[in-house]
Amino acid sequence: MKRCVLTIMFSLFCLMSVLPRWMIEAQETRPATVSEQTQSCINCHELYSPGMAMDWRSSRHARTSPAQALEKPRLEQRISSQAIPEDLRNHAVGCYECHSLNPSLHPDNFEHFGERINVVVSPNDCQMCHPVEALEYGESKKAHAYGNLRNNPVYSTLVEGILSLKTAANGRVAARKASVVTEGETCYNCHGTRVTVSGTKTITVDMGDVEVPDLENWPNQGVGRINPDGSRGACTACHPRHSFSIEIARQPYTCGQCHLEPDVPSYNIYKESKHGNIFDSKKESWTWDAVPWRVGYDFKTPTCAVCHNSLVTSLTGEQILPRTHDFGSRLWTRLFGLIYSHPQPKSGATYSIINSDGLPLPTTLAGEPASAYLISQEEQAGRQTDFKRLCRSCHGSSWADGHFAQLDSAIMESDGMVLAATQLMQHAWDRDLADPSNLFDEAVEQMWMEQWLFYANSIRYASAMAGPDYAGFKNGWWEATHNLKVIEDHVRFLKDD
Amino acid sequence: MKRCVLTIMFSLFCLMSVLPRWMIEAQETRPATVSEQTQSCINCHELYSPGMAMDWRSSRHARTSPAQALEKPRLEQRISSQAIPEDLRNHAVGCYECHSLNPSLHPDNFEHFGERINVVVSPNDCQMCHPVEALEYGESKKAHAYGNLRNNPVYSTLVEGILSLKTAANGRVAARKASVVTEGETCYNCHGTRVTVSGTKTITVDMGDVEVPDLENWPNQGVGRINPDGSRGACTACHPRHSFSIEIARQPYTCGQCHLEPDVPSYNIYKESKHGNIFDSKKESWTWDAVPWRVGYDFKTPTCAVCHNSLVTSLTGEQILPRTHDFGSRLWTRLFGLIYSHPQPKSGATYSIINSDGLPLPTTLAGEPASAYLISQEEQAGRQTDFKRLCRSCHGSSWADGHFAQLDSAIMESDGMVLAATQLMQHAWDRDLADPSNLFDEAVEQMWMEQWLFYANSIRYASAMAGPDYAGFKNGWWEATHNLKVIEDHVRFLKDD
Amino acid sequence: MKRCVLTIMFSLFCLMSVLPRWMIEAQETRPATVSEQTQSCINCHELYSPGMAMDWRSSRHARTSPAQALEKPRLEQRISSQAIPEDLRNHAVGCYECHSLNPSLHPDNFEHFGERINVVVSPNDCQMCHPVEALEYGESKKAHAYGNLRNNPVYSTLVEGILSLKTAANGRVAARKASVVTEGETCYNCHGTRVTVSGTKTITVDMGDVEVPDLENWPNQGVGRINPDGSRGACTACHPRHSFSIEIARQPYTCGQCHLEPDVPSYNIYKESKHGNIFDSKKESWTWDAVPWRVGYDFKTPTCAVCHNSLVTSLTGEQILPRTHDFGSRLWTRLFGLIYSHPQPKSGATYSIINSDGLPLPTTLAGEPASAYLISQEEQAGRQTDFKRLCRSCHGSSWADGHFAQLDSAIMESDGMVLAATQLMQHAWDRDLADPSNLFDEAVEQMWMEQWLFYANSIRYASAMAGPDYAGFKNGWWEATHNLKVIEDHVRFLKDD
Repeated sequence: MKRCVLTIMFSLFCLMSVLPRWMIEAQETRPATVSEQTQSCINCHELYSPGMAMDWRSSRHARTSPAQALEKPRLEQRISSQAIPEDLRNHAVGCYECHSLNPSLHPDNFEHFGERINVVVSPNDCQMCHPVEALEYGESKKAHAYGNLRNNPVYSTLVEGILSLKTAANGRVAARKASVVTEGETCYNCHGTRVTVSGTKTITVDMGDVEVPDLENWPNQGVGRINPDGSRGACTACHPRHSFSIEIARQPYTCGQCHLEPDVPSYNIYKESKHGNIFDSKKESWTWDAVPWRVGYDFKTPTCAVCHNSLVTSLTGEQILPRTHDFGSRLWTRLFGLIYSHPQPKSGATYSIINSDGLPLPTTLAGEPASAYLISQEEQAGRQTDFKRLCRSCHGSSWADGHFAQLDSAIMESDGMVLAATQLMQHAWDRDLADPSNLFDEAVEQMWMEQWLFYANSIRYASAMAGPDYAGFKNGWWEATHNLKVIEDHVRFLKDD
Repeated sequence: MKRCVLTIMFSLFCLMSVLPRWMIEAQETRPATVSEQTQSCINCHELYSPGMAMDWRSSRHARTSPAQALEKPRLEQRISSQAIPEDLRNHAVGCYECHSLNPSLHPDNFEHFGERINVVVSPNDCQMCHPVEALEYGESKKAHAYGNLRNNPVYSTLVEGILSLKTAANGRVAARKASVVTEGETCYNCHGTRVTVSGTKTITVDMGDVEVPDLENWPNQGVGRINPDGSRGACTACHPRHSFSIEIARQPYTCGQCHLEPDVPSYNIYKESKHGNIFDSKKESWTWDAVPWRVGYDFKTPTCAVCHNSLVTSLTGEQILPRTHDFGSRLWTRLFGLIYSHPQPKSGATYSIINSDGLPLPTTLAGEPASAYLISQEEQAGRQTDFKRLCRSCHGSSWADGHFAQLDSAIMESDGMVLAATQLMQHAWDRDLADPSNLFDEAVEQMWMEQWLFYANSIRYASAMAGPDYAGFKNGWWEATHNLKVIEDHVRFLKDD
Repeated sequence: MKRCVLTIMFSLFCLMSVLPRWMIEAQETRPATVSEQTQSCINCHELYSPGMAMDWRSSRHARTSPAQALEKPRLEQRISSQAIPEDLRNHAVGCYECHSLNPSLHPDNFEHFGERINVVVSPNDCQMCHPVEALEYGESKKAHAYGNLRNNPVYSTLVEGILSLKTAANGRVAARKASVVTEGETCYNCHGTRVTVSGTKTITVDMGDVEVPDLENWPNQGVGRINPDGSRGACTACHPRHSFSIEIARQPYTCGQCHLEPDVPSYNIYKESKHGNIFDSKKESWTWDAVPWRVGYDFKTPTCAVCHNSLVTSLTGEQILPRTHDFGSRLWTRLFGLIYSHPQPKSGATYSIINSDGLPLPTTLAGEPASAYLISQEEQAGRQTDFKRLCRSCHGSSWADGHFAQLDSAIMESDGMVLAATQLMQHAWDRDLADPSNLFDEAVEQMWMEQWLFYANSIRYASAMAGPDYAGFKNGWWEATHNLKVIEDHVRFLKDD
């Protein structure tokens, strides 16, 4: 008898040792109860939008109440408020808990089968449980991505030049105004649109006619979306839809939706780096949802999130880098998106910068930085020192030092390759072969723009993340060199014209 | 004693709960017996082509007889004939069962160690068990992909222009005839070659000399392959080689073999969309071989197959979309491959279209549609309504409606960007700076072709599948705009010439 | 009682049948003991570089002594020396075992907390246990990749032309000397840098100041790296860092770090081939670390390593291809990196070739091969016959023969497309529209270079590996054809200049 009990216990042990992780976790934290309101949401939406309901059911939100989340040791907590309102503390974080917050701030609030619901849950709502993340994110360039395009005349001109609908007559191209829809599918798809409410509309669904808010510039989930409640950003840009998954947010694929070639080739370069190689080869054996994220144990090689935002510790819990949702805050230099590289800006709202040319750019066309708006040398040095701590988890000091010395050289030389293109451009402007009144509307000017937005960016990123193809033949030194020769000849041909 | 029995049963339960899925399935459906003829195939080929034999052994065909397949509930059936001949009913679907069918239709039939065998198994053979799939597929543009190139003079000119072997003398390029081999490795690799039999040949293999049919334009597995038996298509294009795997067919990688940039960038755009991001992050936890395929449960986000062909239901079995192997039949508009977008054609054999210019194209060079050959507005509206049912599994109605309204705008505006290029081209033709007799053989004409085949396509796909990079800087609006300026200058330089 | 014992045994069996593979293996081979010196390395580095220590702990080296490795059946051995020195035989292969070898050959040897340590472990050190691999690799073009660029004047000119820092004045581009750092981040990142020691330096780490060798051109892990000890190559290029993983080395991602578009698009083409499709769809179920690697059983479709270097057998152990670390030795023809394709060179040190133009290239500018330096037709035929044995594991003989006949055609025709570009170039040179003294420094010459380095390469690779997009619109026939027309017009415009 006793032996049989032992056998059963042993069998149970066997079973436990092989059960999928999520099953065990689900048992450990007895699932939180679902509020009455959320249950009534689920009852309908499980029928009419089963994928949405299933997605939520698979989420941590669906099985954890804020009270349970707060029981974890501080380092393991995924919640950053200690003061959760009583009515939210003890239920799973369900439909109603998120879609009912701050109704007075939400022009998108409407009555839906007896409850008042917001269509667009915003960072201002998420901060009920995650205030530190919302605050950090609010400071970031990401949160200001809408204004950083819209409120900067140079970039607005570029955007309008690209997206305006063209016609041609007599062999000449003419441009009409760009449509807001096209803006929302291109630049503002990543940067975020301004979502507004223009009254209500009646839609016909399986259950009959329903009256809902009529949203403009929707759908959109850009990182700098201006929400109907006036807040900036979309947490779902990285923690998608109704699973709000940290695993997905940590995957490079998430960052790779916007940070990809030709203008921001960081994802492409990561994929071809040694780090990316190890990630691709080994990722299935990693623990993607561990908090904190332990180097060498939960993951074997950096991903975007490791270097730029996650809380990283050793196996024994020593902190290597703290968590941040201000994604530029670990970086000292800014490699992309602008004519020349430069120290990171002090504020995420970069459109407020004015350089000595009077333009809202962090450097002049000749490369002089607008230093008053950029972080100091001391701040740069401190950030690099902190960053190297992460590199040295796996690499020797000489390796890490050598790597960043190489990056310094790549930055300097790629800026030089842009300056050469600017000099050719200036030559054409000076001889009336091109017109400087709009920086982006002639073929040669567009080639000049490719020199910095595509090729110099690629060279710098390729250096920063060790993906040599993008430094060489793929949009790197080869294209930067060839482009100069093509511009040179094009200007000669214009002269003959 | 009784307790021990219970313990054993419990242990067995433990075991069952953790055994790999395929082991359990293999036990559930006691493996089907292998026919005598197939066994003799295996006996040799296991020695001389072990990878081939192993591939088949891992297949569902190897462990299931048609009779067993028919025992499943209707919704779960992967077989669409109820009338399987007696001699095929009760054996596993092995080498002989497939390679011996319809011998009189097969010029590639030959005697091989005592049996008569066809080299090329065709859709006409597969329809023995899968008639609905073969019929649907036969109606599709895919099945007509060979003729849609070969029998369309405009496309034939394009193909010949690209693939003809070039020489140069006196600074001028001249073209010789393109070779069929090069055709078979480029356009017709995806579209399919015409496989013919030109007698027999003797080959030397490990077992000695063997006489086999001598196939022309082989190997090929293009979707519109013309098989020796005259049938159209290759099921192995998507269900590859001897595992005939539904899992592989459902992976976006399969579609991505042909549908990729620069001309058909749907795979590339999927990979950078939010759907692709979730796929890449979570695919390992999905059930790839479930029939029906249950939204939110078996898979978390659409793949190509979800939207374009699989039988999709809710967890409780409500059908969201029925299965189809006519891959265009869920679509209302056609985004790619042609100068302007247009309603889906009524027939998969698009070379039979004649527009008002007298060209076999669904629109004129000015954009006027050949409406008689295209589906009606009612049909378009109905297809979109059906399609949205799938979107609404996971998204609200406003989201889905807004998404397709954005697509309508992208279609209209990208067509406008093509028209502008056509106007520049017409300008050059009108002034004898280019020669309209061949649409594709001059540098400026080729730039015009890139405007629609690469850039306008990218913009539309990027809108349809929400991958903003391809709408913006990667072959999208940026290239479409820059290309117009480059064409404009090129025509000016030609004038001076 | 007896029944209970049986039950326990059965439970144990259940357990064993489901335990992860690595757990079982770890039990089978009781972990080797760690040497005293390695233990003291670990004691510190576990604190200060936890990722590094963890990486090693996860390695086969960490749990296996050479003596244990030699106990395996010959075909399963991963070690190729039978004569391991006594002091290395019975310990795990740890930090000290590798970083202390051949100190007198290492200018990078230094005293580090009481032990003498080499910074850079080289192939000459690895050959202590892996002499066959080191020898084979030493013969390869990979091992000579540094000299094959640096010692070849044509390539040196190309490298310098691309990487030299440019300025512009009066509308003309001028070039200064390229920096060694930029060389190390581009061409020489893959080819390898020459790592030298210039004295020592003091660095400040967590434990205080430490004196270490001061390395130049470091970090680098290029395949042809010249190490401080004078040896050539970096095993870590493919078996990365401290896990030395065969699994990672076998993944296509590893090869894809350097072999990717636009100049060597083999990785990109693999990914879009049917082989790549099956790999992407099924790789999670393969056994990536099996030695030998059994076709159809451990893996389902070739990867780079299968075709180019791994020991491949059938399930029953019949050898299909032997292992090699001379990666070109299975190949008969050389498809990339040079103006025309040609038979594989006899020696990995290709800079020693002299063609009949007197240039260090395997063909003349007109395409005539330097046959004395290239393998014979018999050798080519023999290698192809061996290679096809692998193809025939999964494909019929007609399929394999047809495939390579197609490749022969693609090679011939792509060489023709290069010849046409050379003829246009010659035309410009003959008329003083371009200057032949440097082959790569004018816009039209650079377009000529793209014809062979990008487009002809893509066409050949796409044929070899069956990825039709790269044969067609993506850097293939389309670009090769369009490029000829663009060169033709450009030369005309130069004439008018």
